Amino acid sequence: MQLSGQNYIGGGRSAAGNVLIQSIDASTGEKLPYNFYQATPVEVAAAATAAQVAYPLYRSLSASRRAEFLDAIADELDALGDDFIAHVCLETALPTGRIQGERARTSGQMRLFASVLRRGDFYAARIDHAQDQRKPLPRPDIRQYRIGLGPVAVFGASNFPLAFSTAGGDTASALAAGCPVVFKAHSGHMVTSEHVADAIIRAADSTAMPAGVFNMIYGSGVGEALIKHPAIQAVGFTGSLTGGRALYDMAAARPQPIPVFAEMSSINPMLLLPEAIKIRGAQIATELTASVVLGAGQFCTSPGMVIGIRSPEFSAFVQRFSELMADQPAQTMLNPSGLNSYCRGVESLLANSGISHLAGGVQTGNQALPQLFKADATLLIDGDPLLQEEVFGPATLVIEVADKAQLIEALQGLQGQLTATLIAEPTDLDAYADLLPLLEQKAGRVILNGYPTGVEVCDAMVHGGPWPATSDARGTSVGTLAIDRFLRPVCYQNYPDTLLPDALKENNPLGLMRLVDGVSTR
Amino acid sequence: MQLSGQNYIGGGRSAAGNVLIQSIDASTGEKLPYNFYQATPVEVAAAATAAQVAYPLYRSLSASRRAEFLDAIADELDALGDDFIAHVCLETALPTGRIQGERARTSGQMRLFASVLRRGDFYAARIDHAQDQRKPLPRPDIRQYRIGLGPVAVFGASNFPLAFSTAGGDTASALAAGCPVVFKAHSGHMVTSEHVADAIIRAADSTAMPAGVFNMIYGSGVGEALIKHPAIQAVGFTGSLTGGRALYDMAAARPQPIPVFAEMSSINPMLLLPEAIKIRGAQIATELTASVVLGAGQFCTSPGMVIGIRSPEFSAFVQRFSELMADQPAQTMLNPSGLNSYCRGVESLLANSGISHLAGGVQTGNQALPQLFKADATLLIDGDPLLQEEVFGPATLVIEVADKAQLIEALQGLQGQLTATLIAEPTDLDAYADLLPLLEQKAGRVILNGYPTGVEVCDAMVHGGPWPATSDARGTSVGTLAIDRFLRPVCYQNYPDTLLPDALKENNPLGLMRLVDGVSTR
Repeated sequence: MQLSGQNYIGGGRSAAGNVLIQSIDASTGEKLPYNFYQATPVEVAAAATAAQVAYPLYRSLSASRRAEFLDAIADELDALGDDFIAHVCLETALPTGRIQGERARTSGQMRLFASVLRRGDFYAARIDHAQDQRKPLPRPDIRQYRIGLGPVAVFGASNFPLAFSTAGGDTASALAAGCPVVFKAHSGHMVTSEHVADAIIRAADSTAMPAGVFNMIYGSGVGEALIKHPAIQAVGFTGSLTGGRALYDMAAARPQPIPVFAEMSSINPMLLLPEAIKIRGAQIATELTASVVLGAGQFCTSPGMVIGIRSPEFSAFVQRFSELMADQPAQTMLNPSGLNSYCRGVESLLANSGISHLAGGVQTGNQALPQLFKADATLLIDGDPLLQEEVFGPATLVIEVADKAQLIEALQGLQGQLTATLIAEPTDLDAYADLLPLLEQKAGRVILNGYPTGVEVCDAMVHGGPWPATSDARGTSVGTLAIDRFLRPVCYQNYPDTLLPDALKENNPLGLMRLVDGVSTR
Repeated sequence: MQLSGQNYIGGGRSAAGNVLIQSIDASTGEKLPYNFYQATPVEVAAAATAAQVAYPLYRSLSASRRAEFLDAIADELDALGDDFIAHVCLETALPTGRIQGERARTSGQMRLFASVLRRGDFYAARIDHAQDQRKPLPRPDIRQYRIGLGPVAVFGASNFPLAFSTAGGDTASALAAGCPVVFKAHSGHMVTSEHVADAIIRAADSTAMPAGVFNMIYGSGVGEALIKHPAIQAVGFTGSLTGGRALYDMAAARPQPIPVFAEMSSINPMLLLPEAIKIRGAQIATELTASVVLGAGQFCTSPGMVIGIRSPEFSAFVQRFSELMADQPAQTMLNPSGLNSYCRGVESLLANSGISHLAGGVQTGNQALPQLFKADATLLIDGDPLLQEEVFGPATLVIEVADKAQLIEALQGLQGQLTATLIAEPTDLDAYADLLPLLEQKAGRVILNGYPTGVEVCDAMVHGGPWPATSDARGTSVGTLAIDRFLRPVCYQNYPDTLLPDALKENNPLGLMRLVDGVSTR
């Protein structure tokens, strides 16, 4: 395929600027022979305006029409050829099998949101019938459902070039909600982004969506102008705490502040309880090592902290875990800045006198070596910020606590998390039952006897959690509930049936489950 | 009853400070003989900490136990005696009948949230069963429901001393969600607040709620310390745009930003369509006048702008409306600062050369005179900020547009609103159908042939809307959906049935409607 490197604005392509940027071969660090045109301020504004113009047209389409669009995107993604897969691998150093799997996840996610649109529960329709005879005043007929907020700016993640990027979960949920999208292409995979944007545009054309339903801009620094544009009504972001906080602050400082859903930083604590360590310590060490180094540890849900209670069995586990970690090979990271950031994180841990180094070679070259550390429990209890920081890469930290009381104290010192995991036997759960409420206060997802690195795309998933895991614990960026972030309720008072949207008409033409006079009914 | 004037902290009373403040007789402007102790910084922190300590205890109570508490508050409110009603009237200059009605609304709201807790749809329970045989990887069992965010700071409104204050909608929805509350008593009705807080504490005691489930502090300037306290996890506010923006900015600037739901400023445009004006112009003038001056115009949903299309009939309507407005008596406002603010708003309108004065005497004395203005449509189309500002009091502004095109242009110039109203005949609705999507983009509630000043407390109500109507269009502060603001989803992966909350157990002991494997089912 021919790459034009031009911005996607209102259904057309635009290259008004003269700043050219290039994507990098993640394995060699060399520039790839494709030029991308950094969007000018005028182009950023044009993209936001195109989304604004599309908004009333797009949101007024029936949910089933929007579902057609999402299904068509899924089909276009699945039809992308080997050159696409090769390009993604080139830009990210991720293996072919992973990218093929991630593509299936991304198209599956689009189809799942299409099914949400068809089943219609996202409308959250509510009807309170008039009560003409009510005293002292009659009650009017009032009916509520939800509509899209308006144009959404989406910032993709480096670590999921498909599933959390151009056609990823934020884009899918915004489009499902009836919100046009302006996507800021991640500089780590601009070739990938162009392939995917083309697929989305083909789907928009084949399903006759309004021009401007999807727009994409390239460049560094263009995000600020995008977020500050008055047409933008919400933001989706996946990335670092620094990046997410900066976007959040810009959005909050607007004359009209807008909601930001930023998925940022999580160390995903794992609690290894005594009986489990006693019975299957060696197996846990093997599984945990695999989870820590999976994809070079470049997952939001990579386990960054492992907490256990002092015992001979826990010492044996740590010993085994250290040996396994020491044996893990170096891996190429997504990009040089990711590797730099990993090296800086590792150096900070090495430099702390309360932290000892259990496994991992001296970091050299352009690959990341797995690293294992052990920290004094007091560092966590005293709230040392170093222990709360996500080190993005194949490293983790063991903490040994004296007893259950200290375990609870340590957990209370933790900030918000995407996940918290218990590895436990039934007898552990009896003895440590009071940990469970604490874990759910800290995290969006609590896991029993599993590893956090798999994130199902389904109705019940929560990929969210209290700050700094995300900027708003009330949302999720994976799973169908993600659509809620981009919807707002509106109600109609005293409307005749003919003027009501189908979701609220008296005879329920869409066959929705609705809350009618306080009763859920179809 | 004996008023102590002390702050309510963790189930006890506290008067550590030496700054005493007094409430004002709204009719005379004189100080009432009751002293209130402004909370010291230590007391503010103690109130927030008390709520934090109560949070794990309170949120772990069953929903039916929380419902008992809300019902008990309702009963205690209904049992408050004549001295209470007299005190509220003294502090607010609102008539006895209004306060009796508002008390019934407030206790009814508590009971409605109790019913929400008992029916359980607020859990929004979702279950995705494990798929052990799925390829390439098995799917784990994942179950999601919603829990309270944590302690909520609530700031009451001056204009609804009961329904939007101490035991008002924000408090009711936060308590229903499982969130302890720290309430900042409004300085305009501290005696009222003390009566109501006592009622809540009696209810908490009689239903054995944890100490600290409800706390109340007095004073000016204490709100900032409250919002900045790390224990506080969300904010509810009803008041001015200036006040709401200040709180929003403080909350956004925290190390951990927290969500703020501020209900702020709305001018509630009313569109009078030609056929309706032709057929029932005089009746509309009468009804509209009543809506504008109701309660001295001190409603968030008071109609502050009336837009019509130029015609002899519209001129006749404006003439009739002017005559009626000129006949309306002065009314005592809630407090001197409200009157000052009203007078300043009126003066700004009088000073604008694009605005003419149609009715209303010269403002003197301590009562507010109703005022009617007419503005050039171009002021709205050109985005003059003066026309977007809510003048809180018995004033409104007529705008005459040339035709439908100019009407749409004028509407597009409007900021976000709590309500937008169409007064229309069926033939108008045929001719102006394309206004409807525009109105719902601007407002949380769209009304046909009614007046916005009545706000039903029901499941389908939306008392919210785009900025500056509120700080987050995704919420409502009236109606049962208000509980959503204070809930966050959490999911459980691979939990045995015995450890799951009742809402998520396999045999559905609470009898909830749940989304199970993509299907709504009980």
